[in-house]
Amino acid sequence: MKEFHKINLLYDFYGSLLTERQQNFIQLYYGEDLSLGEIAEQFEVTRQAVHDTIKRAEQILQNYEEKLGLVGKFSQEYKSIEKALNCLTGYQAGQKPEGLAESIQILQSILQNRQEF
Amino acid sequence: MKEFHKINLLYDFYGSLLTERQQNFIQLYYGEDLSLGEIAEQFEVTRQAVHDTIKRAEQILQNYEEKLGLVGKFSQEYKSIEKALNCLTGYQAGQKPEGLAESIQILQSILQNRQEF
Repeated sequence: MKEFHKINLLYDFYGSLLTERQQNFIQLYYGEDLSLGEIAEQFEVTRQAVHDTIKRAEQILQNYEEKLGLVGKFSQEYKSIEKALNCLTGYQAGQKPEGLAESIQILQSILQNRQEF
Repeated sequence: MKEFHKINLLYDFYGSLLTERQQNFIQLYYGEDLSLGEIAEQFEVTRQAVHDTIKRAEQILQNYEEKLGLVGKFSQEYKSIEKALNCLTGYQAGQKPEGLAESIQILQSILQNRQEF
């Protein structure tokens, strides 16, 4: 399940660098949860060919992430934005008086990190 | 100057997909503001070769952006985060009573967009 999520994220970022066939297979396998056999039948190729194409595509996506690291960077940032938002809604509800200052600090540090990126 | 900024941004995102030589030349030309002639001398190649390598590298960076669109997406987001931060500091200073609610809305919409990404 974790792998599933990871591949989907990588695909969201780098998917358009794959061939059309690789994109099709990844979408059907990970996006629409078809089995290898079902994809094989639909494209009139062997199950092994589907398997190999998907494995190769996953490897390409992982290679891009190893080089660029954008998924890691922006996942981290996503968590920070979520945290800032939680601080603000807590502050707004009167449950977290320090939430305002904390969220300002979080947003400043996101912008700072991006400049250094 | 605008082109300069754009290439630097593209390079920040996709630079590690260039060859080592392309990276060197782009860094020296755009990052350290060396002239084509200075780079040519340092690497013992012609000025034309430096020019061609840099043009080719720029083209590659632009092609990646055309496919992936990550610089555009995250530049847009950067502006939203800046806006949310301005709302909060205005609110904190007592100058912008609506700033709290506005910033919450901005952050929610960033997270929403990312999920749809």
